[in-house]
Amino acid sequence: MTFIEKLDSACKKSNSMLCVGLDSDTRRLPVVLADEKNPQLEFNKAIIDATMDHVCAYKLNIAFYEVEGAQGIQNLIDTIEYIPEGILAIIDAKRSDIGNTATAYARALFETYGADAATVNPYMGYDTIEPFMEHTDKGVIVLCKTSNLGAKDFQDFGGGLFREVALKVGEWNTNTNLGVVVGATHPEDLKIVRGIIGEDMPILIPGIGVQGGDIEDAVKFGANSSGMRAIINSSRGIIFASKYDNYADAAGKKALQLKESINRYR
Amino acid sequence: MTFIEKLDSACKKSNSMLCVGLDSDTRRLPVVLADEKNPQLEFNKAIIDATMDHVCAYKLNIAFYEVEGAQGIQNLIDTIEYIPEGILAIIDAKRSDIGNTATAYARALFETYGADAATVNPYMGYDTIEPFMEHTDKGVIVLCKTSNLGAKDFQDFGGGLFREVALKVGEWNTNTNLGVVVGATHPEDLKIVRGIIGEDMPILIPGIGVQGGDIEDAVKFGANSSGMRAIINSSRGIIFASKYDNYADAAGKKALQLKESINRYR
Repeated sequence: MTFIEKLDSACKKSNSMLCVGLDSDTRRLPVVLADEKNPQLEFNKAIIDATMDHVCAYKLNIAFYEVEGAQGIQNLIDTIEYIPEGILAIIDAKRSDIGNTATAYARALFETYGADAATVNPYMGYDTIEPFMEHTDKGVIVLCKTSNLGAKDFQDFGGGLFREVALKVGEWNTNTNLGVVVGATHPEDLKIVRGIIGEDMPILIPGIGVQGGDIEDAVKFGANSSGMRAIINSSRGIIFASKYDNYADAAGKKALQLKESINRYR
Repeated sequence: MTFIEKLDSACKKSNSMLCVGLDSDTRRLPVVLADEKNPQLEFNKAIIDATMDHVCAYKLNIAFYEVEGAQGIQNLIDTIEYIPEGILAIIDAKRSDIGNTATAYARALFETYGADAATVNPYMGYDTIEPFMEHTDKGVIVLCKTSNLGAKDFQDFGGGLFREVALKVGEWNTNTNLGVVVGATHPEDLKIVRGIIGEDMPILIPGIGVQGGDIEDAVKFGANSSGMRAIINSSRGIIFASKYDNYADAAGKKALQLKESINRYR
């Protein structure tokens, strides 16, 4: 199956465009896990068990695993292995490097770690993205307009660098496995980017929840005219919904709520 | 000691601006290591033993460690631990992410892995670089004009995005721990960037050797007027100088040669 087929199938099966971000910062895990041998992995498994019916994808920001050293990387691998068949595992790695190194990154993310898709940073240009694209069954999601405040520093440069990125990504999409990241905190730009890339390309949309982006705008401007091809991510708002014993239950409820909010506007 | 003090001291002690890139791709290691229990780490130790008198820094491109999974990350940590006191360990990670995630990356690179400096990608803006800068004794080296072909795709956008990056990095350098990356494959731009950032900020210069950048230009345009503050990297040209039993010896000779070539133009 291609990345697009996997995404569509996952969205249909769960009737959801929600992606849960497993940004499992060990300093924020529920106290009840403190005596576990491997709290980060136990936490992820419990969150997955509680939310799997409400999501099309999980997004693992690799920083929260790298910071735990070798054990963290093993937790990343084991978590991806644990994600049920039919739900996408996206590694949010924002990688970028020259040819031979990008090839190593792509192998690391797609083969060693087993991701279905990964985020990449466009700053270094085409030849740094191509080695990821060569994994034709995997998704390669390019940063375009990010959800943070600093996005304006360079992404708006020269009349709109992010538009140029969207344009180029559209041109480069010969393997039809590219996507873009646009933050829900910039609804106007979400509209502009959907206009540039057309109907087919998926947009990964972070920035709802803790970061303040509006769900209605994210769906209205991010999804295509069939109400598809948007992957709407929430991380902290779901996984840290409760810090008590009921944390998994609370995450499940929050995910269901969010899925329904999103579907209201599709 | 600050990052700048560490760098100057390392350059003076070795009388060298050479940085050896430990891009230790396990598919390219000498056959003689095939029976070792941990070839990547043994290789790095032998290369360090053979080159330590000729370098101011080692640069570890983290992709080649990540691709080996948890063992690779342990090799990265053990290699950094093995680098002699007084020589800088730079992790070439090109990281970039929003605030709380960048904080985790900075902790991973500087604390968990023990780097003296790390490379970061500017695409996402100031608030994604700041969490690295807060480690005031560590160097934060921002991609400006990279050595690869695709550098032109976005770094020249809008009349020169890379100039804007150099300008901003100069403005943001309140902790005097920032640096920039400019590839030796763009000597004109190296000159432009040194002009923008002034005398004090270090420039990490990849792209000599296999990538074809000229050493004389790298030194002439990259170093400041005292012949300092350039970190000139060679990776594959040194560490894979020989694939036979004499690989460490060959790397040592190559490093000495390159150090002397660089010093000829300082």
